[in-house]
Amino acid sequence: MAGDPFFQPVSGLDLPRFAGVPTFMRLPYVDFDHPRFKDVTIGLVGAPWDGGTTNRPGPRHGPRQLRDLSTMIRAKNGVTWVAPFELQNCADLGDVSPNPADLMDSLARMEAFYDRLRVAGVRPLTGGGDHLCTLPILRGLAKGRKLGLVQFDSHTDLNDCYFGTGKYTHGTPFRRAMEEGLIDPARYVLVGIRGTAYGRDDWDYAAEQGIRIIGIEEFHKRGVDDVMAEVREIIGGGETYVTYDIDFVDPTFAPGTGTPEVGGPNSWQALQVARALRGANVVGADLVEVSPPFDQTGNTAWLAVNLMFEMLCVMAER
Amino acid sequence: MAGDPFFQPVSGLDLPRFAGVPTFMRLPYVDFDHPRFKDVTIGLVGAPWDGGTTNRPGPRHGPRQLRDLSTMIRAKNGVTWVAPFELQNCADLGDVSPNPADLMDSLARMEAFYDRLRVAGVRPLTGGGDHLCTLPILRGLAKGRKLGLVQFDSHTDLNDCYFGTGKYTHGTPFRRAMEEGLIDPARYVLVGIRGTAYGRDDWDYAAEQGIRIIGIEEFHKRGVDDVMAEVREIIGGGETYVTYDIDFVDPTFAPGTGTPEVGGPNSWQALQVARALRGANVVGADLVEVSPPFDQTGNTAWLAVNLMFEMLCVMAER
Amino acid sequence: MAGDPFFQPVSGLDLPRFAGVPTFMRLPYVDFDHPRFKDVTIGLVGAPWDGGTTNRPGPRHGPRQLRDLSTMIRAKNGVTWVAPFELQNCADLGDVSPNPADLMDSLARMEAFYDRLRVAGVRPLTGGGDHLCTLPILRGLAKGRKLGLVQFDSHTDLNDCYFGTGKYTHGTPFRRAMEEGLIDPARYVLVGIRGTAYGRDDWDYAAEQGIRIIGIEEFHKRGVDDVMAEVREIIGGGETYVTYDIDFVDPTFAPGTGTPEVGGPNSWQALQVARALRGANVVGADLVEVSPPFDQTGNTAWLAVNLMFEMLCVMAER
Amino acid sequence: MAGDPFFQPVSGLDLPRFAGVPTFMRLPYVDFDHPRFKDVTIGLVGAPWDGGTTNRPGPRHGPRQLRDLSTMIRAKNGVTWVAPFELQNCADLGDVSPNPADLMDSLARMEAFYDRLRVAGVRPLTGGGDHLCTLPILRGLAKGRKLGLVQFDSHTDLNDCYFGTGKYTHGTPFRRAMEEGLIDPARYVLVGIRGTAYGRDDWDYAAEQGIRIIGIEEFHKRGVDDVMAEVREIIGGGETYVTYDIDFVDPTFAPGTGTPEVGGPNSWQALQVARALRGANVVGADLVEVSPPFDQTGNTAWLAVNLMFEMLCVMAER
Amino acid sequence: MAGDPFFQPVSGLDLPRFAGVPTFMRLPYVDFDHPRFKDVTIGLVGAPWDGGTTNRPGPRHGPRQLRDLSTMIRAKNGVTWVAPFELQNCADLGDVSPNPADLMDSLARMEAFYDRLRVAGVRPLTGGGDHLCTLPILRGLAKGRKLGLVQFDSHTDLNDCYFGTGKYTHGTPFRRAMEEGLIDPARYVLVGIRGTAYGRDDWDYAAEQGIRIIGIEEFHKRGVDDVMAEVREIIGGGETYVTYDIDFVDPTFAPGTGTPEVGGPNSWQALQVARALRGANVVGADLVEVSPPFDQTGNTAWLAVNLMFEMLCVMAER
Amino acid sequence: MAGDPFFQPVSGLDLPRFAGVPTFMRLPYVDFDHPRFKDVTIGLVGAPWDGGTTNRPGPRHGPRQLRDLSTMIRAKNGVTWVAPFELQNCADLGDVSPNPADLMDSLARMEAFYDRLRVAGVRPLTGGGDHLCTLPILRGLAKGRKLGLVQFDSHTDLNDCYFGTGKYTHGTPFRRAMEEGLIDPARYVLVGIRGTAYGRDDWDYAAEQGIRIIGIEEFHKRGVDDVMAEVREIIGGGETYVTYDIDFVDPTFAPGTGTPEVGGPNSWQALQVARALRGANVVGADLVEVSPPFDQTGNTAWLAVNLMFEMLCVMAER
Repeated sequence: MAGDPFFQPVSGLDLPRFAGVPTFMRLPYVDFDHPRFKDVTIGLVGAPWDGGTTNRPGPRHGPRQLRDLSTMIRAKNGVTWVAPFELQNCADLGDVSPNPADLMDSLARMEAFYDRLRVAGVRPLTGGGDHLCTLPILRGLAKGRKLGLVQFDSHTDLNDCYFGTGKYTHGTPFRRAMEEGLIDPARYVLVGIRGTAYGRDDWDYAAEQGIRIIGIEEFHKRGVDDVMAEVREIIGGGETYVTYDIDFVDPTFAPGTGTPEVGGPNSWQALQVARALRGANVVGADLVEVSPPFDQTGNTAWLAVNLMFEMLCVMAER
Repeated sequence: MAGDPFFQPVSGLDLPRFAGVPTFMRLPYVDFDHPRFKDVTIGLVGAPWDGGTTNRPGPRHGPRQLRDLSTMIRAKNGVTWVAPFELQNCADLGDVSPNPADLMDSLARMEAFYDRLRVAGVRPLTGGGDHLCTLPILRGLAKGRKLGLVQFDSHTDLNDCYFGTGKYTHGTPFRRAMEEGLIDPARYVLVGIRGTAYGRDDWDYAAEQGIRIIGIEEFHKRGVDDVMAEVREIIGGGETYVTYDIDFVDPTFAPGTGTPEVGGPNSWQALQVARALRGANVVGADLVEVSPPFDQTGNTAWLAVNLMFEMLCVMAER
Repeated sequence: MAGDPFFQPVSGLDLPRFAGVPTFMRLPYVDFDHPRFKDVTIGLVGAPWDGGTTNRPGPRHGPRQLRDLSTMIRAKNGVTWVAPFELQNCADLGDVSPNPADLMDSLARMEAFYDRLRVAGVRPLTGGGDHLCTLPILRGLAKGRKLGLVQFDSHTDLNDCYFGTGKYTHGTPFRRAMEEGLIDPARYVLVGIRGTAYGRDDWDYAAEQGIRIIGIEEFHKRGVDDVMAEVREIIGGGETYVTYDIDFVDPTFAPGTGTPEVGGPNSWQALQVARALRGANVVGADLVEVSPPFDQTGNTAWLAVNLMFEMLCVMAER
Repeated sequence: MAGDPFFQPVSGLDLPRFAGVPTFMRLPYVDFDHPRFKDVTIGLVGAPWDGGTTNRPGPRHGPRQLRDLSTMIRAKNGVTWVAPFELQNCADLGDVSPNPADLMDSLARMEAFYDRLRVAGVRPLTGGGDHLCTLPILRGLAKGRKLGLVQFDSHTDLNDCYFGTGKYTHGTPFRRAMEEGLIDPARYVLVGIRGTAYGRDDWDYAAEQGIRIIGIEEFHKRGVDDVMAEVREIIGGGETYVTYDIDFVDPTFAPGTGTPEVGGPNSWQALQVARALRGANVVGADLVEVSPPFDQTGNTAWLAVNLMFEMLCVMAER
Repeated sequence: MAGDPFFQPVSGLDLPRFAGVPTFMRLPYVDFDHPRFKDVTIGLVGAPWDGGTTNRPGPRHGPRQLRDLSTMIRAKNGVTWVAPFELQNCADLGDVSPNPADLMDSLARMEAFYDRLRVAGVRPLTGGGDHLCTLPILRGLAKGRKLGLVQFDSHTDLNDCYFGTGKYTHGTPFRRAMEEGLIDPARYVLVGIRGTAYGRDDWDYAAEQGIRIIGIEEFHKRGVDDVMAEVREIIGGGETYVTYDIDFVDPTFAPGTGTPEVGGPNSWQALQVARALRGANVVGADLVEVSPPFDQTGNTAWLAVNLMFEMLCVMAER
Repeated sequence: MAGDPFFQPVSGLDLPRFAGVPTFMRLPYVDFDHPRFKDVTIGLVGAPWDGGTTNRPGPRHGPRQLRDLSTMIRAKNGVTWVAPFELQNCADLGDVSPNPADLMDSLARMEAFYDRLRVAGVRPLTGGGDHLCTLPILRGLAKGRKLGLVQFDSHTDLNDCYFGTGKYTHGTPFRRAMEEGLIDPARYVLVGIRGTAYGRDDWDYAAEQGIRIIGIEEFHKRGVDDVMAEVREIIGGGETYVTYDIDFVDPTFAPGTGTPEVGGPNSWQALQVARALRGANVVGADLVEVSPPFDQTGNTAWLAVNLMFEMLCVMAER
């Protein structure tokens, strides 16, 4: 087996999967001060914050449940046989520390954390947290370049404002990111959008900006292969960020989330769309909106960490 | 925006969706004595009764949970962009009051309630309650005309009798309705029937009467589009009632029900069949058999209110 | 039976308790614009906000679950036989509208709501919401007078700051209220404090200010009767506010809360302490920190609405 | 060890407690046609019926869950060391068959079943079912004699009528039993009554008839020993039936029930009151109102079968 | 109706499905000593043992939950209209007794039980238990002949060893069975394999031995009809055992299991693969790895007993 | 603040309690190879093993859930104000690695782990695991000396054998420990024993050996203070091990366990008995039998970690 021995996960054939302090995918825990931090190439990060949530809170508890369930992940992809831990030095970098009592301070703390990763040359794979977390991540990673963006989601999160003053909520991050020039609209595509709507403002905004939205009816009609071929064409070979909102998946498969919309993709399709990014130039990715209070069984988190693993395999092959 | 301002739902952009006394879809509560009752064109009604249940009870608690979850419904259909609250004056008419200790009295109370709606020109969209509720609704609405009937269900509910004396159970309503001349058998179609069976009496009865049953194997083989084309042909342009038993849907997607049958349609198909009724002449509809004690998470009810919304959109365009 | 017929709750002997749109204790819903608002003497209010929560969120969903369970409350107190709805005009005033994306705006909205009630002469009984809600309530009600305060709680909530910038959290409301002169320290008593501690700063602050804390060990040793005799002596006959954090109760009896501390009073003691306030001059009361995501069964809320009913009986007899 | 070998429960030291088809307390299943039926002295019976329930249904599922959990009961009482299976020939007699669609037919079926037991000289220990089940049991057992009655409960169940026509509900059985002369009011005592009330009619009726009610406040003040001494004095040495509504116990200890009332006895007290009947002349007993849909964990049923075992020990020593 | 009256299940039209001591599919309970044992042709057996479980335990509780839910099974297959109880004498044979404290003793006890069935000419349909149970079943049934094997599963269970000494775990039964000559590799096919992997040893072993593995990607691409045509071809007309691990199904449809792998077949496909075995020469079958602690709702068990019924229909037609 | 800065827990005022990789009480993770291991004086250890469980398994998952909930523990005892992390160098030593497929190998691995701690002068506080774990712990710690033993439990665990061959189960550890000379019977006391019984063999054995059992009836009659005075007298000043089975507590307060017995102590009493050991010479302690599958809410684990904290405070003051 190839790969740096230090950066290998603990095998369930040696230590049972229910044993041990749970880190992401049983990887070594390496914080900024750790002697091996300089060798990390992909960092798994928890973002335990849901300050942008407008309805049912809970994603602040996501990283812990994701880590717990991720101990059932093994070393190789059973479909593509990619072995990410042999290709890259992966580590659990711990959690970025939020301030639950101060939204703006939380945004600043998170941006600083990811800025540091960018500088260190570590590509992050984040477990959220709500979708507002993606804004400071993009701020930290973009820094003067416009990134391509693939967004798997049931909502556009391109809204402007809630409750009169709410410019920063989990329904607005990509409107802000667009305004701040973090995203290249020509290389920005959303997949899976559905649910009842207040209006069409977000769709109109996307159309004006040249952003491509693939709604759920189109998704179901065309199928995964056709849709993802278009997605890969849109993002091309440029630097791209992937944001995966768990509510992209049908809520029966992922009930542990705050704003579920029925009629979404099933679990196999959920895996396929991530796997289909193979070959893309992914500079970072996240899986957000897992809300443990709405699924204490861990079933949602189990699907979510499998999706994280699929994205990790894509990132590892770059 | 068109539509009478009084009959608009409260927006989640103004008042968070978890706030406020929960009415159906955040519509105004308008009872028979309310000054605006005369202007209502579509009434959302709760039928909190499960006196016909032969196995696992609970649908009496359905309306309250449906109202609770319905506060996450927004104003427009994200696929068809129909905006029902702009097209019709919709209101929550409250619950029809049952008598849990007296089956025949409950049937009489419900018939009287729907009779009153028919006289007032209000088309009802009901949240049940078990499937026996549909019998008094049909009695109240039919009054001398035979209605077309679309029944989404996993059981025919065309049986004759249970336990020796049970002529009125949730397994018999449409046998009774047929005997009472409330339904036109030539315009009566059932979709999704499945599960193990005591015998074939109900299928034989349907065949004799000229009622069309589309069983689950046929459904899966032909697909939604083909099946629903036939359904629309069967009901034609005549006055039609739509009854949607939540156990039509696969129980994984809708576990909160009393007599689940595995192997049913998924959530997207569940939405599609309702949406495919577009253009039909629907005089009333119901969604029954949601049983909160068997799904306290509200996930079943959340799917159910989305199905109610799809039926509302169909009714609104008439 | 005495009492204004308009302000009577719906009886479960007439309409089953599972039926009907759920208002607090099945009382009429009366908002500020309602013609009978001017006649209300005690208003039941929902405060669906948890913006001050530092650990496990959820109390924003409290009012809806409290209303749901409160439909099992009947008309008379089974121990004291007080009949609050005969003594006072009670109504459900709906929810105060928070801004989940803006902490300071939420505080302002809530203060304005309660200020309006004070001006209208309505005494409020509030269902929270987290404990930070009590700060704007006190601001609205105090207005130039220092109120007595009885706090049933497992935490002092007298801390100064969290995470460096957090002056307004559910761990700090009474420190702020003290600083703002809303509370008379000589007439302020806390009961039930327990759990592990970061330090003793809050106890030291209380001692300096002359605030009386009755910790859990003292509570269990002395018993309810003795403890509550002292409480009544402390508050005397002056205007007093009562704030009841559900985490006062042992978490086995009330698991649906965010910061549970084991070893607390049982349900009978929980009722007794509220009942023992009989005769006090209560200008308002609240029951906070019920978090439905942590108890979807509704058992916590059921205990909580019984506690609200006990406080209502005390308020009604004034 | 004494006792007929045929009537001994399967030991958990031989067959693990999770194994085997679950009968009550792992006793042999003996129906009316079984050759050993004639030797049974105490019969454990399931009464899976909740047709009298006015609010939250479910006790029809009680017997199955009670049997499941009862497989953790062992052979001897750990406090009194009574060994009931050595003293009596105990067997599981199966379930009395109800008619869920016909209240009056169900009452008739149940009365006939218990009448047959009385004739055969079998004393029944029943697992319900809602509290209306006790009426046909008393009809079957009393037959011309007035029985003493000990009722552990949070409600009197002495009401007259619900919803205008409901003479037979789980809130009325003992009013009917009194009217039918099945109970001797001078030997009838209720313990644990509490909760909010519609009015005082039931208490007034009890007072008129000479029935003794020991309310919850009196219970908590006097303690189990004192209260039960009075209970034993009231029933004396005459033939007595014991009916134990699980909602007697505080709902935290027994959440799986339909009409919980907070502030009740804890589990130790719940055991003590049953054990304190030692020496009474008990002709039959029941444990009712366990509702599995409201506690799928089985914890309520586990307490309930322990209470059944305590009553069985009392019955066994007669 | 054909069929021996003694071996017919109790109808839910006579005795409600929630009533009665729960045997498999409401069949008569017939142990080895029962006078009708000699007439049984298909025996339903519980194997309450999970001693081979390497991660999350619980299947020892499977048989009881399977029996409970199986009471909702009726007499006829709603798709094929096969009526198994008319074609064969089916009975519940009870549970094989394991020794939870001794793995080797448990294996011996189980082998002896199935050996006895083989000698008596009873074909077994077993509800597990974990997948290690299938090893002693095969030992009992094979006896000198190599059986064909159809394995529906998400894991190959062809591994060699765990934790250094673990030759007998639920991940190794078919490696052992191969070594012991119980299976004909040319007539052995696995369907549905997926999930992350430690390595490729098990796939390599299968390839060397000539065992056919149809992985999940192939399954989804080809569809059920095509895949099952190949399966039937592989097993041909020879004696074949069918082992169905519930984790073959996507865990959203069957969450109650210990080692779930996302992205599997849905419930309709799960039924189809079993039904597609029609015509095969099935000498025995099992459904394993249902773990009630991970799904107390019973939904997983409900799907599982439907799968058992489909396999029973296939066995009945032989 | 006193105490080595390295060995201080992370404060919830700095990093929210839901953030960070969860170690026991947020202490540093220090394994045998860590440079600071030599400075540890009290080690918190997880023992994720339940190979001795005879009924409902699950405690193997205990350590992870205990660590998760332990992040809500703060730095000081709110009753005694003991600050254990200032008095001792405490660290999370990780989990002892079991072999789920080999009982005897697991016992050997655990004994070796604790032997190493004894040699290093680290006193262990263990979170189980089932009660059989205590046997190898005692083997590792005793080494030639007979320890005093305080056992809080509902069962004696002094049985000899299960299922014919089961000498090593969670019902037999202290019989084995007695036979191996690890315990001084004169300094061995059990508190809280209750529940139904197979027989009196274990009580008889204890009496013969001079072991003191304080059953539950005696416990409830005498009260905690009196009982614990006797306990302290029995153990005196000699080296003593404390084993706390969570099923000592009433199962309503601690439902997450495999063999619950109703009628036990409440949560306050559960804390008191641990606290009352103050001054004892405790060489090690454990908290066992927390079974997450039977309480996914974490409420049981939350009580359990509070009990661990109380024992830690006692150990810290030595």
